[in-house]
Amino acid sequence: MTTRSLSLLAGTAALLAFTSSSARADEGMWTFDGFPRAKMEADYGWAPDQAWLDKVRNAAVRLTGGCSASFVSGNGLILTNHHCVASCLFDNSTGEDDLLDHGFIAARLSDEKKCPGQQAEVVTKVIDVTGDVKKAIGSLAGEALTKARDARIAEIEAGNCTDRETTRCQVVTLFGGGQYKLYTYRKYSDVRLVWAPEDRAATFGGDPDNFNYPRYSLDGSFLRAYENGKPVRTPNHLKWNPRGPEEGEVTFVVGNPGSTSRLYTQSQLAFEREVRLPAIVTTYSELRGRLIRAMQESPEHEREGLDMLNGVENSLKVYIGRMNALNDPAFTGKLAAAEADLKARSAGKAGIGDPWSDMDKAVQAYRKLYFASRSIAPSGDLYHYARTLVMGAAERAKPNAERLPGYTDSALPLTEKRLLDAAPVYSWLDELRLGWSLSKAREYLGVDDPDTRLLLGKESPEGLAQRLVSGTKLADPAYRKQLWDGGEAAIAASDDPMIVYARKLEARQRELEKQVDEAYAGPATAAAAKLTDARFAAYGDTIYPDATFTLRISYGKVAGWSERGRPVPFQTVIGGTFDRATGAPPFDVAPAFAAKEKQIDKAVTYDFVSTNDIIGGNSGSPVIDKAGTVIGAAFDGNIHSLGGNYGYDPVLNRTVTVSAAALQEALETIYPSPRLVRELAGK
Amino acid sequence: MTTRSLSLLAGTAALLAFTSSSARADEGMWTFDGFPRAKMEADYGWAPDQAWLDKVRNAAVRLTGGCSASFVSGNGLILTNHHCVASCLFDNSTGEDDLLDHGFIAARLSDEKKCPGQQAEVVTKVIDVTGDVKKAIGSLAGEALTKARDARIAEIEAGNCTDRETTRCQVVTLFGGGQYKLYTYRKYSDVRLVWAPEDRAATFGGDPDNFNYPRYSLDGSFLRAYENGKPVRTPNHLKWNPRGPEEGEVTFVVGNPGSTSRLYTQSQLAFEREVRLPAIVTTYSELRGRLIRAMQESPEHEREGLDMLNGVENSLKVYIGRMNALNDPAFTGKLAAAEADLKARSAGKAGIGDPWSDMDKAVQAYRKLYFASRSIAPSGDLYHYARTLVMGAAERAKPNAERLPGYTDSALPLTEKRLLDAAPVYSWLDELRLGWSLSKAREYLGVDDPDTRLLLGKESPEGLAQRLVSGTKLADPAYRKQLWDGGEAAIAASDDPMIVYARKLEARQRELEKQVDEAYAGPATAAAAKLTDARFAAYGDTIYPDATFTLRISYGKVAGWSERGRPVPFQTVIGGTFDRATGAPPFDVAPAFAAKEKQIDKAVTYDFVSTNDIIGGNSGSPVIDKAGTVIGAAFDGNIHSLGGNYGYDPVLNRTVTVSAAALQEALETIYPSPRLVRELAGK
Repeated sequence: MTTRSLSLLAGTAALLAFTSSSARADEGMWTFDGFPRAKMEADYGWAPDQAWLDKVRNAAVRLTGGCSASFVSGNGLILTNHHCVASCLFDNSTGEDDLLDHGFIAARLSDEKKCPGQQAEVVTKVIDVTGDVKKAIGSLAGEALTKARDARIAEIEAGNCTDRETTRCQVVTLFGGGQYKLYTYRKYSDVRLVWAPEDRAATFGGDPDNFNYPRYSLDGSFLRAYENGKPVRTPNHLKWNPRGPEEGEVTFVVGNPGSTSRLYTQSQLAFEREVRLPAIVTTYSELRGRLIRAMQESPEHEREGLDMLNGVENSLKVYIGRMNALNDPAFTGKLAAAEADLKARSAGKAGIGDPWSDMDKAVQAYRKLYFASRSIAPSGDLYHYARTLVMGAAERAKPNAERLPGYTDSALPLTEKRLLDAAPVYSWLDELRLGWSLSKAREYLGVDDPDTRLLLGKESPEGLAQRLVSGTKLADPAYRKQLWDGGEAAIAASDDPMIVYARKLEARQRELEKQVDEAYAGPATAAAAKLTDARFAAYGDTIYPDATFTLRISYGKVAGWSERGRPVPFQTVIGGTFDRATGAPPFDVAPAFAAKEKQIDKAVTYDFVSTNDIIGGNSGSPVIDKAGTVIGAAFDGNIHSLGGNYGYDPVLNRTVTVSAAALQEALETIYPSPRLVRELAGK
Repeated sequence: MTTRSLSLLAGTAALLAFTSSSARADEGMWTFDGFPRAKMEADYGWAPDQAWLDKVRNAAVRLTGGCSASFVSGNGLILTNHHCVASCLFDNSTGEDDLLDHGFIAARLSDEKKCPGQQAEVVTKVIDVTGDVKKAIGSLAGEALTKARDARIAEIEAGNCTDRETTRCQVVTLFGGGQYKLYTYRKYSDVRLVWAPEDRAATFGGDPDNFNYPRYSLDGSFLRAYENGKPVRTPNHLKWNPRGPEEGEVTFVVGNPGSTSRLYTQSQLAFEREVRLPAIVTTYSELRGRLIRAMQESPEHEREGLDMLNGVENSLKVYIGRMNALNDPAFTGKLAAAEADLKARSAGKAGIGDPWSDMDKAVQAYRKLYFASRSIAPSGDLYHYARTLVMGAAERAKPNAERLPGYTDSALPLTEKRLLDAAPVYSWLDELRLGWSLSKAREYLGVDDPDTRLLLGKESPEGLAQRLVSGTKLADPAYRKQLWDGGEAAIAASDDPMIVYARKLEARQRELEKQVDEAYAGPATAAAAKLTDARFAAYGDTIYPDATFTLRISYGKVAGWSERGRPVPFQTVIGGTFDRATGAPPFDVAPAFAAKEKQIDKAVTYDFVSTNDIIGGNSGSPVIDKAGTVIGAAFDGNIHSLGGNYGYDPVLNRTVTVSAAALQEALETIYPSPRLVRELAGK
C-alpha cells in the first residue's frame, strides 16, 4: 500500500459506517467462513455461491514478506505488486546490475531468481478452536492467561502440522481474543522472481503520489513458486483476464489485510492519538530525514537506501493519515457514537459486565510500560539477527508449549528461513538505523532512566552503533548458521559484539514482555473476549473481525467518488503518464515508457478505483470479477482510506488497482515477455 | 531556552492554576505598570516599591536576536546566556578559528567583536494608546480592521520616535487585541562580544539534557553595547552579586517572554492540537534528521550546521512538549474548566456577546488557509533576503500608514540592519533548508495544488533549491545593499534567480496575507478585545496579558520540586559535572574544565531552580534578589514548563538559572578574564 496527501485539511468523511455497529454498504474484510451472502445479495442482487468462494480461496496466496497475491497459471505463476517484490529486486541487485532501477525479465525459467526470506502460503483448511483455547485459559488472568493461551496454541499448531516441510499451522486470534481459528497452509518456501517493470514505472509520482489518485502506476509483478527446484503445479489458479473494468461492475478483493483497529475502545483510541501515533510520526520523520540526506551522499547510498526509504515513507504516510483521522472530531465522534450504541444494546446482558472499564485499566497500565518496551528493542538487521540468535538459543532449549510465540515448533521454520537466507546488509544503513533508534530511546526514556543506561552504558548512540556494526560478523549467513546450530553454548561463548549486546539486553526484554503480558495483553484479551460477546449479542453475525494478516474477502464495485464537489474518475489510462510527467523525479517517465511511447496503446486502462474495503497487507491481492477472473492487482488505497484503520467510509474510501489490461500492455509492448504472455493465456 | 524529556508519559500536573481565572501562586508574566504588589505582599509579606521597580526596569535589556539581558556595569556590559550569543560566535568563526567550540575572551576592549543583526534595547517609556487604536478600528471588521489598526499603529510609532538612530517606538498589542501600548526604547545597534565559555561548557548534556534538571550548564556570556565606536555609559545597571542562592529566597526574573497562548479559547487550542503542532513536529523532525546526517559528512558541515541544529532541536523539544501537554486530558480539562468559568462569570454582561463563537468561526476559516500560508514562504537565509528585498522595494514606495508591519518607518531600521549586516551563509545548509521546505510544501498541499505548482513549476524541490542557491549572489552584503538602495527599479531589473523566484511568489503571498487578515486575523482581534473585556469584568486587574516579547517581571522563590515522589534539589554544584560526565558527547567535559579540574571550587553553586513563570525569550534574563542585585541568568525551564505556553503549574513549573557564583568562578579560574572580574566588581 503506498495514497496522496490531497491536504491535511480535507474533512475525512461526511458519512461513516463503523463496525462496532453492523457493517453497512461495502464495508467489511470478511473471513471466507463468514461471507455475508444474504447482505450482498440484498445490496447487489447477486452473491457468489460456495463453489465460487472455494475456487477463489484456493488460488489466493499469502506472501510472508507482508503482501497478498494469487496463482494465475498452472505452473505456480504468482501475480502481485511491484512494491511486494521490491525487496527481492533489491536483494538481487549489485552496483553493476540494479534490478530495482532497471526492472527484471526472466527470458527462461532458469533465469528466475530466488527471493530471500520470501515464502508463499495457501490456506487449505480453517477450524474453529475457540472452545479449546478458551478452556485452556479458563479463569486465568494477566500473564498466566497469555502463557496458558500461547501454550495451548503451540500444542494445537504442533499437533496439526506434523509435516513442517510443506505445511504451516497457525492459530489466529480474532476479535482480539473473542475467537481462535486454526489455519492450515500449504507452503512454498522457494519463491522466485519472474518479471518486474522498472521501479519508476511502478512508483511514478513517488512518495508525493503515494495514496494519491488519479494515479499512473504499473505496480504489478510476477513471481513463481518452486518446490524441489521445479515450478509447482497449481491447477487451482485464477484465470487471467486482461480487460479494462466497467464502471459499476462488482469486484472482489481477496487477500490478507494486515491489521485494523476498528474494534478499539475509546481508551485504546485515546492511547493511539495521545501517545503512540505522535511518537511514531515524530521519530520516523527524523529517520526519514537522516535517510534522505544519506542517500544524497553517493550513487551507492542512493541505491542501497531506496528500499528502506520507500518503506519508511509509506509507513509515515499511513501513520500521519491515522493521526489526522483521530484528530478529526467528526471522525472520532462517529467512533464514540458506535461505542455508545454497543454499550446501550448490551447493557444488562448476562456475562458481559463492563469490559470497557477493564480495557481502560489495561491501557492505563500499558501507558506506563509503552516507551520502555518500545525502546528496549533497537533497530537494524544485524541487531535483529543477534536477537533472534540469542532468544532462539534459549527458547529452543525449552519444551514447545513453554516457548515464546516466534520460536514454537510451528513458527520455527519461517523464523529460521528469515535468519539464514542470504541477503545483503549495508553497514552504513544498519549503523544509521541502530544509531537513530538508540538516540530516540534516550530521548523518550530520558538520560537518567535505567533502561537508557542499559542500552548505552557510557557510549553515545552513534558511537555504540558504529562499534557494534563494524565489529560484528553477523552479515555472513554462514556465521549465523554456525551460531544457530551451536545453540546456547555457542551463544554463551560468542564474543561477537552484537551477540554480546543482544545478550546484555535479553533479561530486561523478557522482564518487560512479562510485565506487558501481566498488565496489558492478558487483561486486554479477557476484555476483548467479552466485547466480542457483546457485539454478537447486539448485531448478530453481520460483523467481521479486525484484520490479522489472514485471508479475507471484500466485495464492492468499480466507482470514482466526489472530491470537494468535483468528480474523480473511476479509471486512468496509460497515456495519462505522459501528461502528468514533469521530467523531474519522481515525475519523470520510466525510460522504457519514453522509448516505446509511440508503440504504447495510450487508451488502455491503467489504474482504477473500487469501493472494496482493504488495508496494508492487501497489496498484491487479485481483484476478481463476477466470473471469478482476475482483472487487476490492488496496490493502494486513496488518501481517505488511511482513516480506514479505525473505520470505513463508504462515500470516500477507495481501493486503487493496477488493471490486468495495463499489465498485459506492458508484457506485450513495454517490458516484453512473450513467454509470460503465452503462459497467462493458458497456452 | 533550551528541559529534559523525563518521559512522555509523565503526568503534566496535579494542580494547575490557569490565567483565564485570576493568577494564583507565583504565576504571571506581569507588565511593569501592572505589577500585583498587593498580591505579592499577601503571599510573601514583602513586595518591591516603585523605586525598586524603576531601577530594575532601567537596567533590563532586550536583544533583538530573541533574548533578554541586563546591564551589569557602568560601561555597557551586558549579561546574557551563552545560547543567546551562539549565533554571534558562529558568525565570527572560521574553519581555522571556531569561537563556538573554543569560547571567546576579549583580552582588551579593542578585541571585542561585533554581532551581526544584534541590537540591544532598553524601555524608556510606556504609554497606553488603547483608546487611540480602538477609535481608528471603530466598527470595522476583517481585513479592513487589520489595515486600519496597522495604519494607526504606524502613525503613532512614526510620530513618537522622530530620532530613529537612537530610539525605537513599538505599539504592542496586548491580550490579542484588548489593549495597545506604545513602548519607547533607547536602542544600541552596535553590540559586541566580550566573553563566552566553550560551547560544551554551556551545552553540557546537549539536546538530551535540554529542558532537563538537575543541570550542569555554564549558559552565561557577556556582551557590550557600543555607540559611535565607544562603550555606552550605563549608570542604570544592576549590581553583580556572585553569591549562591538561598533555598526559599525571593527571586525576580525581568525579561521579555516571547509568546504564550494562555488566553486561547477552546477552538484555538483544538487547532493547535489537531493541526498546527502535529505538522510542525513532523516536518521539523525530518529537518532535524537531514541536518544530523549532513553534519556527519565532514568537520566543516559539523561546525557550520551546529547553530542551526541547536535551534531546530530546541524548537522541536518545545513543540513536542506542547503537543504532549495538549494530549494530556488532565491538563486540557483545566483549560476547559477555566473557559467555562469565564463564560459563567461574564454571562449576560453588556457588550460582551459571544466572542467564543466569533473566535471559533475565525479559527475554522483559518484551518482552510493555514497550510497554504505556511507553505508559500520557503525557508533559508538567501530566500529570506530575496523576500525582504522584493517586499521592501514595493512597500517603501508606499506612504508609511499603508505599508506592511515590517516595513513601516519605525520598523525599517531593524529590518535593514538584519538584511545588510554581514553574516556568513553556507550554501549547502541553505540549500538543505530550502529543499526541505519546498518538499514539505508539496507534501502538505498535495502535488496538484495550484500553490505547489507555483512553488515548484516542473522542478523537483531539491533541483529547484540547488538552482536557486547556486545561482544567487545574495550571500554578498554589498550586492544586497545595491538592490536595497536600487529600490523597485533594481528589483524589477534583476535576473538574480532568487530575486526572480521571490518576485514570482510575491503576489500570491500578498493575496494569502489578505485572506488571512480578512478571515482570521481581523475577526480574532475583534473577538480578543471582547474576551479581554470579559476577563477584566470577571477577575478585575489580577490578570496579565499573554507574552509578546516585551518587558515583564515575574516573582517567585528558589525551590526544588518533587518528581514521582522524589525530591529534586534546588541547586547543583560545579563538581557535579565531573560525576555526570561519561566521556561521550554530549556528556564529555569541556576541555577547560578538564584541564582546570584541580583548581575549580567544585562546591560552588552551578545552576538553580525557582518558581518564576517564564518562557522562551526570557533566556538571558537577570535573576534578581530582594536587594535588587543579580544572582544569575535564567536560561531554561524544566520539562514541565513546556506546557507553560498554555498554563502555569505552580507545583511543577520551574525556571532554571546559571548562578552568578558559577560565572564568577569561570571568570576567575576556568576562562579567566581579570578585566571582567574587575569591571563586575565595580573597580
